[in-house]
Amino acid sequence: MRKAFSDELNATFDDLADMCALVESAVNGATKALMTGDASTAEKVISGDAEIDKMRERIEEESFTLLSLQAPVASDLRLLVAALRMVSEVERMGDLSVHVAKIARLRVPDLAVPAEMLSIMQRMAEVAVDMVTRVRQIIISRDVEAAIALGRADEEMDQLRRQSFAELLSDNWTHGVEPAVDIALLGRYYERIADHAVSIASRVVYVVTGHRLEEQ
Amino acid sequence: MRKAFSDELNATFDDLADMCALVESAVNGATKALMTGDASTAEKVISGDAEIDKMRERIEEESFTLLSLQAPVASDLRLLVAALRMVSEVERMGDLSVHVAKIARLRVPDLAVPAEMLSIMQRMAEVAVDMVTRVRQIIISRDVEAAIALGRADEEMDQLRRQSFAELLSDNWTHGVEPAVDIALLGRYYERIADHAVSIASRVVYVVTGHRLEEQ
Repeated sequence: MRKAFSDELNATFDDLADMCALVESAVNGATKALMTGDASTAEKVISGDAEIDKMRERIEEESFTLLSLQAPVASDLRLLVAALRMVSEVERMGDLSVHVAKIARLRVPDLAVPAEMLSIMQRMAEVAVDMVTRVRQIIISRDVEAAIALGRADEEMDQLRRQSFAELLSDNWTHGVEPAVDIALLGRYYERIADHAVSIASRVVYVVTGHRLEEQ
Repeated sequence: MRKAFSDELNATFDDLADMCALVESAVNGATKALMTGDASTAEKVISGDAEIDKMRERIEEESFTLLSLQAPVASDLRLLVAALRMVSEVERMGDLSVHVAKIARLRVPDLAVPAEMLSIMQRMAEVAVDMVTRVRQIIISRDVEAAIALGRADEEMDQLRRQSFAELLSDNWTHGVEPAVDIALLGRYYERIADHAVSIASRVVYVVTGHRLEEQ
């Protein structure tokens, strides 16, 4: 019974990791749409979110069934409850990719981001994707060291956001209000994807060690 | 045993409602700071968030203890797991109030919002506060009708956001980039507060009826 439960718990975490892989593609697709102004890539991200939502429902139902029927205790219970909470965060990362894709779609055939801001946006996207990739691996491995390291990785994202604000609020900004607003919101969306990755990593630290990340 | 459990479950939901009341004050305080440029009100919201975070930790720990020791089943289990997920959303609403307060503080002694945009921002804030108030009552009453009604209440917020974008992207906008970016982000924060209220309401519908809100 305990063995079967632990297999099912692992299967739940594997499903969660698969869901993360879909989000990884979504962030990549949304970024590609943003960088190239390609409407069909944006559409694919937007319509593809339904699959991520379906996975969330399935994982929620499986976890809940496991909780009801097996009434796990101690660390098993902790892990299962954590999975139920992480799944909402992974879903949100998918929603945020959709927000990025929608801004890209809104400006097609133009680019939402002026040429001189493309490299900073690209770097934000890379940091976000890297964090999603790492959190996917952390979900599978439940590696506390990697989770703690991820918790510190969003410093670059913060710095990129500050840098992008400095650009669009500087006297040299000649693109007016619309691209400035787009960039501020896009920066917010990438930053939130990173925040969710950190939050999931800190849940992993908590379920494995019993200590919150900020106490490490 | 069952009676004691149901008392404790109600106590958890009461705590969650109390946490909502703190968030209500935070949204109100942040809005006051935004409308008046009052730094000390902004500071109070920012430092007050620690209390909201502490409540979250306490509610999480209590729920988890209840889950471990009482191993509830069926609807009790469903409610308790829902509480554990709602608490994250209530905490996020608090964080979003802090974001609003920080924008207000950044522009002190000036106002972040130009005079002609104050009324639309004020209305966004009112809608957000109203939704937090209603969701607090829904958490206590678990009133499905009220929860379904709340799920439809964010239409005004969507409309206000569209209206604010139309203003700041119009040719009549003379305030430049900085207030435009502030307003876009502020709109996003109020909208997210409303989204979380809707999400909590839909969790209530789900735990009480077994159906998701979109299926109603």
